[in-house]
Amino acid sequence: MKQYLKQDEWCIIEEGFKPEYNEISESVFSIGNGRMGQRANFEERYSGKSLQGNYVAGVYYPDKTRVGWWKNGYPEYFAKVLNAANWIGIDIELDGEMLDLATCKISDFRRVLNMREGYLLRTCTVTTPTGKTLKINAQRFCSIVDDEVGAICYSITPVNFSGKMVVTPYVDADVKNRDANYDEKFWIEISKLVRNSQAYLVAETKKTGFQVATGMLFQIFQGGKEENEFVATRRKRENFVSCSVPLTVKAKEEIIIYKYAANLSSENHPKENLLKNCQNVLKNAQKKGFDKMLLEQAECWKAKWAKSDIIIEGDVAAQQGIRFNIFQLTQTYTGEDERLNIGPKGFTGEKYGGSTYWDTEAYCLPFYLVNANEKVARNLLIYRHKQLQKAIENAQKLGFTDGAALYPMVTMNGEECHNEWEITFEEIHRNGAIAYAIHDYIRYTGDKTYLAEYGAEVLIGIARFWAQRVHFSAHKQQYVMHGVTGPNEYENNVNNNWYTNYIAVWCMEYAMESIQFVQKNDTESYKTLVTKTNLNASKEFAKWEHICKNMYFPEDTKRGVFLQQDGFLDKDLMPVSALRVVDKPLNQKWSWDRILRSCFIKQADVLQGLYFFEERFDNDTIRRNFEFYEPMTVHESSLSPCVHVILGAKIGLFDKAYQMYLRTSRLDLDDYNNDTEDGLHITSMAGTWMAVVKGFGGMRVYDDKVHFAPYLPEAWKSMTFKARFRGGVLEMNVTKEHVTVKNMGEKAIDLSLYGEMHLLEAHKSVVLSTQVPVTE
Amino acid sequence: MKQYLKQDEWCIIEEGFKPEYNEISESVFSIGNGRMGQRANFEERYSGKSLQGNYVAGVYYPDKTRVGWWKNGYPEYFAKVLNAANWIGIDIELDGEMLDLATCKISDFRRVLNMREGYLLRTCTVTTPTGKTLKINAQRFCSIVDDEVGAICYSITPVNFSGKMVVTPYVDADVKNRDANYDEKFWIEISKLVRNSQAYLVAETKKTGFQVATGMLFQIFQGGKEENEFVATRRKRENFVSCSVPLTVKAKEEIIIYKYAANLSSENHPKENLLKNCQNVLKNAQKKGFDKMLLEQAECWKAKWAKSDIIIEGDVAAQQGIRFNIFQLTQTYTGEDERLNIGPKGFTGEKYGGSTYWDTEAYCLPFYLVNANEKVARNLLIYRHKQLQKAIENAQKLGFTDGAALYPMVTMNGEECHNEWEITFEEIHRNGAIAYAIHDYIRYTGDKTYLAEYGAEVLIGIARFWAQRVHFSAHKQQYVMHGVTGPNEYENNVNNNWYTNYIAVWCMEYAMESIQFVQKNDTESYKTLVTKTNLNASKEFAKWEHICKNMYFPEDTKRGVFLQQDGFLDKDLMPVSALRVVDKPLNQKWSWDRILRSCFIKQADVLQGLYFFEERFDNDTIRRNFEFYEPMTVHESSLSPCVHVILGAKIGLFDKAYQMYLRTSRLDLDDYNNDTEDGLHITSMAGTWMAVVKGFGGMRVYDDKVHFAPYLPEAWKSMTFKARFRGGVLEMNVTKEHVTVKNMGEKAIDLSLYGEMHLLEAHKSVVLSTQVPVTE
Repeated sequence: MKQYLKQDEWCIIEEGFKPEYNEISESVFSIGNGRMGQRANFEERYSGKSLQGNYVAGVYYPDKTRVGWWKNGYPEYFAKVLNAANWIGIDIELDGEMLDLATCKISDFRRVLNMREGYLLRTCTVTTPTGKTLKINAQRFCSIVDDEVGAICYSITPVNFSGKMVVTPYVDADVKNRDANYDEKFWIEISKLVRNSQAYLVAETKKTGFQVATGMLFQIFQGGKEENEFVATRRKRENFVSCSVPLTVKAKEEIIIYKYAANLSSENHPKENLLKNCQNVLKNAQKKGFDKMLLEQAECWKAKWAKSDIIIEGDVAAQQGIRFNIFQLTQTYTGEDERLNIGPKGFTGEKYGGSTYWDTEAYCLPFYLVNANEKVARNLLIYRHKQLQKAIENAQKLGFTDGAALYPMVTMNGEECHNEWEITFEEIHRNGAIAYAIHDYIRYTGDKTYLAEYGAEVLIGIARFWAQRVHFSAHKQQYVMHGVTGPNEYENNVNNNWYTNYIAVWCMEYAMESIQFVQKNDTESYKTLVTKTNLNASKEFAKWEHICKNMYFPEDTKRGVFLQQDGFLDKDLMPVSALRVVDKPLNQKWSWDRILRSCFIKQADVLQGLYFFEERFDNDTIRRNFEFYEPMTVHESSLSPCVHVILGAKIGLFDKAYQMYLRTSRLDLDDYNNDTEDGLHITSMAGTWMAVVKGFGGMRVYDDKVHFAPYLPEAWKSMTFKARFRGGVLEMNVTKEHVTVKNMGEKAIDLSLYGEMHLLEAHKSVVLSTQVPVTE
Repeated sequence: MKQYLKQDEWCIIEEGFKPEYNEISESVFSIGNGRMGQRANFEERYSGKSLQGNYVAGVYYPDKTRVGWWKNGYPEYFAKVLNAANWIGIDIELDGEMLDLATCKISDFRRVLNMREGYLLRTCTVTTPTGKTLKINAQRFCSIVDDEVGAICYSITPVNFSGKMVVTPYVDADVKNRDANYDEKFWIEISKLVRNSQAYLVAETKKTGFQVATGMLFQIFQGGKEENEFVATRRKRENFVSCSVPLTVKAKEEIIIYKYAANLSSENHPKENLLKNCQNVLKNAQKKGFDKMLLEQAECWKAKWAKSDIIIEGDVAAQQGIRFNIFQLTQTYTGEDERLNIGPKGFTGEKYGGSTYWDTEAYCLPFYLVNANEKVARNLLIYRHKQLQKAIENAQKLGFTDGAALYPMVTMNGEECHNEWEITFEEIHRNGAIAYAIHDYIRYTGDKTYLAEYGAEVLIGIARFWAQRVHFSAHKQQYVMHGVTGPNEYENNVNNNWYTNYIAVWCMEYAMESIQFVQKNDTESYKTLVTKTNLNASKEFAKWEHICKNMYFPEDTKRGVFLQQDGFLDKDLMPVSALRVVDKPLNQKWSWDRILRSCFIKQADVLQGLYFFEERFDNDTIRRNFEFYEPMTVHESSLSPCVHVILGAKIGLFDKAYQMYLRTSRLDLDDYNNDTEDGLHITSMAGTWMAVVKGFGGMRVYDDKVHFAPYLPEAWKSMTFKARFRGGVLEMNVTKEHVTVKNMGEKAIDLSLYGEMHLLEAHKSVVLSTQVPVTE
């Protein structure tokens, strides 16, 4: 855990440069716009510790990496997220000396991520090894309005010297991935063009053949006046273009470089037009100008915040944490392009690869249900419906038949693109999350037409998978499920993971219920469904029911807890508090086999099930399991703490809930898991949001009504959030004394507050005294 | 299973070319000499199905292949066995038409591997697409006498035409591995040299920097007269050198090309001398000449066969099988270079990678104990002693401390060079085999000095590992071992694998016994040992004893069988006979998760333990376990059947034993597992030998005496084998009527035959009636 960033309600602030934490800051100060994004690398050269990263949505490389003994059914490739062309670079040369911040004395360093307006600002004073002092002021953003454009305003002022300065803006696609074997590179140059103050590069990814045109166009102002007369030295080498502008500078006279850059992908433009379109995009950007673009950026962010902001008074750390999460999530996924999804690192790092995980359904969907137009959540579901055929093929590769569907663990396009057997073949609970998301969506929106249109078909494929994946144990006289990896990935290839067994049964039940709903309410669609899926309802339902009634669930009746898996009690059970400091985080300190053998839990597993299906369990049961498992949980998955906030608040473990809230909301800001340098934990940020709204807001939707049971953490003065619900918008404000729910919309909403029903007319509020939620 | 090869006592014969089986034949007809070897690729071009393979001992590439989510403690690389320069190639061009056997009509095809004399012969008549008919007769061998040299006598006779023929012998290092990602190549050219009838190429492996000089020198005879006047066209391109000789040929006139080739490795020569030394080696080879080299080869093989041949009369399939196994094993490892070991595919394929597996200790050692000078077996043990420090480092990487040693699963130089966690971190029973080999060696040779000199130190490291690898289960009140992969690799990450638990306890017991032996008999060495290993005997022994006394062994008391692992009975138990034909082999037909969930066993697991420690179990126990597990065993590891022969013969299941014998001895000849095309199963060939000597010969060594209890399979008329024992040599001959043991040596040997002791004087025989071994 590190706490070097300054707390502020709207900004992330680093004061004083800390080279040892530079890679962490590069992650934290990342900017993006849903289509591209980048780490907070410096514009100037920096030979110190740095992970350079620019990312373009949808662009990947199929790494055919093969482990030793390839097994049948293994996926063809691992989809590597690719570092793309560096478009921010500006080299500065002073009287022949190249400016390298790593060799300079740096003072007055300040890095600010302005979340309210969506830009990154860095100011500092640097002194070169030969004693030249400069003031630097660099501001940049990825435009949300013009989402192929990034803009930089780079100001540099000589403090104690006059002389020659050569300024070299460039585009560099001669980049690599940190995780490349033997520094292999992935971009092949297609074409390039350099003019006096513009340069363009089109590069293609190996194998996948995505092309990206990256261009730049710059203007230079000296002493407030634009330089129009310069003759730049144009440089080209493979995958690199630059323009070097020689200037004569005077002490105290500011030089400003406006660098407009664009990334155009062949996913959105015909390859033959990439270069031309890139030129046009940049011409328009320059015409609009940096200041206007920045103004539009701020306006756009203002609108986004109006919808999704959570205000916490009295606790700056908590306020900053939640805004940081909402900001980064919003930067990563806008819901506008149905081909895209939410990668676990967003545009902030190359780790994990691929773009779509079960995170989307289990953690991100609720955020979009509450904060965005219904269509965004629906699009996230349809994304999976579109990939149903590939999920069926994926299951076939593993020997499943008759329309059974197994969704991939990681994917770019519906194909499995991860390549570890214990994950792809065994972490099958993901299938359950995809079914659960359908339930979650319908529960929230009431849109039951989704079932006939898309949902039921997906549910049939998923139920069929589970029915084939279990087997009847003659020894136990029950159905068992062997060889799975649960949400707790610190166990692999276990038998009877409680969560997986539970969600499997739930999926079969929900599938039957849904199909019957369609049959009853929409005969035409039912017929189509039966034909399309070749459903033999009586026979298949009989089988599913038999499984549901005879499934084995491991349990410790003495302790009154569900067992994470068979044999869990044989482990050397001990709390995380018994670990030495040097042992943590386990995933960086212990070998894999040792982690697997230990009792320690990466993320909520049994508790994930209790969270999903909380209405089926009483608080005592939840509490017994919470108190058994949480002490053994290291929360080394970013997806873990939020579930504990929600359950903890529900059963009255408020201190624990608050502690877990800080952990999830400040996970990256405080580098809890010592891995922020690899990139941010984007998908878990939606979990943080859930922690507030579901955890402290006690918000639930069932029986077609929205329910709240707010609890205000001790340290907070107030908490305010908004929730869209069935065409209306509610604003929830909680203080120590009062809970106020305001209907901001045009129609009345029926809601429950602390278990009491209220019909809230449009523009009206209901005010109640704040309660501590009842714990049974 | 395929049976297209002709049965013969001394030769492997393919009559009639079967292009669909060509890759299988390329494996089966492989030749080698312990220092290099190659698959039976054709000299001429062949555009059909073919896996080209030339291998040089000790040369590998460290593939840094990374699976998706790298875990702490993973090995740095996977050691890829590299396909090296093709030195056999001879292109033939007829009136401008390149001879490609895949486009020709082939008749009278005959491929012979002459095992008695150690060469490969191919004869055929081919007709080109334009109607030219040729007779080809190609003979080659890798010289065992001049072990850097291979020699080819390639004869070609036009049958129905006269005209121009261009003959192009070449050396081609522009080769790749079939398992390379995206056809990556691994050789970098260092230098080359082409003369009129010679060409040389020095190439270096990427990363590892091994250099290999491959040279060729050829002579051409036309109509029995050497061509001296030709002017060859010399060609060079990257990693390729050739000399094209234009000839005018006449119908019926034979052209003979003698091609001498050499592979010199920088492991044996200074890099700067490689090219020069290669020239000298070839000069000498040419001076000696093909015929003399072939004669020496035959003489050398004669001597080898005199030591290790097994003669089976009355069953050609069985005779051919055992000779093929002995032949290939002898070609792969000569015991002369202590840096080398026995790779699972020898020089016949690239699969698996690395060179040293537990196969060496568990399966190969007995072959060398019985057939070779004691020093060969001792060298195999010392190989591991030399790597003890690396085994300790390997254990440290996984978090073990205080001198615990974990030998690698796969290695080239003592480092782990495989990269699947379920194997390297969990298939730890290999450590047991390394300890067992020490016991096996001492039991056989009586050389107890080995303990003080090398053995005890290794045993301490191994015992320490086990003591740390188990943990005490509060729930079971016993020690358990979680997260292992047993010999049956069709289970991963299981708890309490019976075999592993058993051998772990045995290792600790044997370590204590051995250390106490050293303490009692060699005080000086004991002191050194204690200092070197920092042994605290009283404390460590107390711990080891406590574990040994309180270890948990899974068992089904109702069935009276040991359980392969926890939860085994929950599986859907069914015999292999219930599988459909299309399901086999499982490893090619089923996905990995399905294999893992099934009850099917890749290779003997519980039975491997009963084989190792048979003296501790009565025949009823062995039989119950055999009859429980064998029906579920698919024997898809080549190491499986031999154990079943030995146990089956012991408990009187003779039909099963014989069936398993054919399976192990003809595994590759009949392609039982549908994978011979990848290369031969070299290490299991020692298992085949054990199947005869230990299985049917009933040979055991204990109490410093050799024991025999021969059983002659029904189909056999007689069986004869030799065994070195404590400085003497015994010859065992078994017929239906009599067992004759002859002492071929100079000193008397005490032996037991069917449980009866005999003191057999030098040059004397003992003759008894053949018995069926008693089954209790």
